[in-house]
Amino acid sequence: MPFVYERTVRLADTDAAGVVFFARTLAICHEAYEESLAAAGVRLHDLLGATGIVVPIARSEADYKRPLRPGDKLRITLTPGQLSAHSFALRFEVVKLGPPEKLAATVRTEHVCTAPAKRERALLPPALLAWVQAG
Amino acid sequence: MPFVYERTVRLADTDAAGVVFFARTLAICHEAYEESLAAAGVRLHDLLGATGIVVPIARSEADYKRPLRPGDKLRITLTPGQLSAHSFALRFEVVKLGPPEKLAATVRTEHVCTAPAKRERALLPPALLAWVQAG
Amino acid sequence: MPFVYERTVRLADTDAAGVVFFARTLAICHEAYEESLAAAGVRLHDLLGATGIVVPIARSEADYKRPLRPGDKLRITLTPGQLSAHSFALRFEVVKLGPPEKLAATVRTEHVCTAPAKRERALLPPALLAWVQAG
Amino acid sequence: MPFVYERTVRLADTDAAGVVFFARTLAICHEAYEESLAAAGVRLHDLLGATGIVVPIARSEADYKRPLRPGDKLRITLTPGQLSAHSFALRFEVVKLGPPEKLAATVRTEHVCTAPAKRERALLPPALLAWVQAG
Repeated sequence: MPFVYERTVRLADTDAAGVVFFARTLAICHEAYEESLAAAGVRLHDLLGATGIVVPIARSEADYKRPLRPGDKLRITLTPGQLSAHSFALRFEVVKLGPPEKLAATVRTEHVCTAPAKRERALLPPALLAWVQAG
Repeated sequence: MPFVYERTVRLADTDAAGVVFFARTLAICHEAYEESLAAAGVRLHDLLGATGIVVPIARSEADYKRPLRPGDKLRITLTPGQLSAHSFALRFEVVKLGPPEKLAATVRTEHVCTAPAKRERALLPPALLAWVQAG
Repeated sequence: MPFVYERTVRLADTDAAGVVFFARTLAICHEAYEESLAAAGVRLHDLLGATGIVVPIARSEADYKRPLRPGDKLRITLTPGQLSAHSFALRFEVVKLGPPEKLAATVRTEHVCTAPAKRERALLPPALLAWVQAG
Repeated sequence: MPFVYERTVRLADTDAAGVVFFARTLAICHEAYEESLAAAGVRLHDLLGATGIVVPIARSEADYKRPLRPGDKLRITLTPGQLSAHSFALRFEVVKLGPPEKLAATVRTEHVCTAPAKRERALLPPALLAWVQAG
């Protein structure tokens, strides 16, 4: 089931063009990821500290469809999907609430579990895998 | 000829994982775009104010290949390419200086010239088109 | 009556030292200001657009008392106070929720109403003044 | 002797009001601090890692005197001063280059050396103390 995160656009998200600076859209989506993990009881920082692995973002893609302004109310929908034993993808839809509602952006990120000490890919920890598979 | 921009990774670019927050990589690349326009004498803000058009980013793609830490010296290489009469793409290579040098990220952005009043695509202004074609 | 705003610390608020980057504390407090204005129906952007005035921050002071980490839950309490016919101050308390609760930072900002065209101070617009006096 | 750092205002430093977001001014000043340490060969991260201490910012004050816009060229002058055996202050002047030059902001930060394990103040490490005293 997709996870839903709500967020108001803040002045600090915008730039002198009057709208959200494109890269901030990705930061807002990352908040939805953090919130979804927290809601599932997955404490990524503790998990990674205990296992010595990290799960960096290896790739991002974003389509920016509509400008977003300070005060706009957003609903971000997050859907995880497993890519391999070591990696998963997240799909985000950023909708500007209305009426009428309008799709403002779609974002996709790829996350690869890595053991930095060995510089090689690592299996997704069970708690993280469960979160991906439940999404 | 590609434009070259140098940048040191700052603490504010990083997050609690100890490395550059992924979306900041795109912001750093955008600095190279701003600097390249300035070096060519293209004042985007004035240009757009005079013509009533905007050139928002419609899409971004990024591959994050290596973690970047505070103090790392970066060389960002920017290569523009025309996509249509209304749009262009920018390709960025983010190299961590060495020795040895290492490719840290590649980024691509698409920019579409738009007349907001009419909600339709607009021709690239001549000064911007010249910059794209010279790149 | 003070306005209360709740916020979770996000990864993008932090830096490689593992805690919130000091300047982000001020940005988080500014979110509380934006939310309080919105809750009171004061649309600062429209107001300023209609009157041609701006209300920039002229001064900020902040005491950072405790480190804040990703996932920490915050309660920001905002109390406005009028300084003059042209200006007001905002006091913010940033509390890390517990148990036990702990005061993490105090912030104070000064806002001065200005008519940019004339480069001189302007009276606070009635809607903004009412918000300050109700705070 | 004060340390001098030059910086161009970037779009991502600004907000929908068209000028630098106030808290970004402090982030820009922190870049000058990072650059000054690097120029003196003080690698704060390594130093702190080796000694187990941290030097968080305990207080900041800033006076914002003029709006700064994308493309503005800045010269930030940094002057350190020792406060105690455990702490120092940094004074920053942010000047918008001209002609004519104009003082855009003044910032002051206080930094307190702390041993987190013991939750108590610690002596400034010799390399950091030398940097403060040379400033």
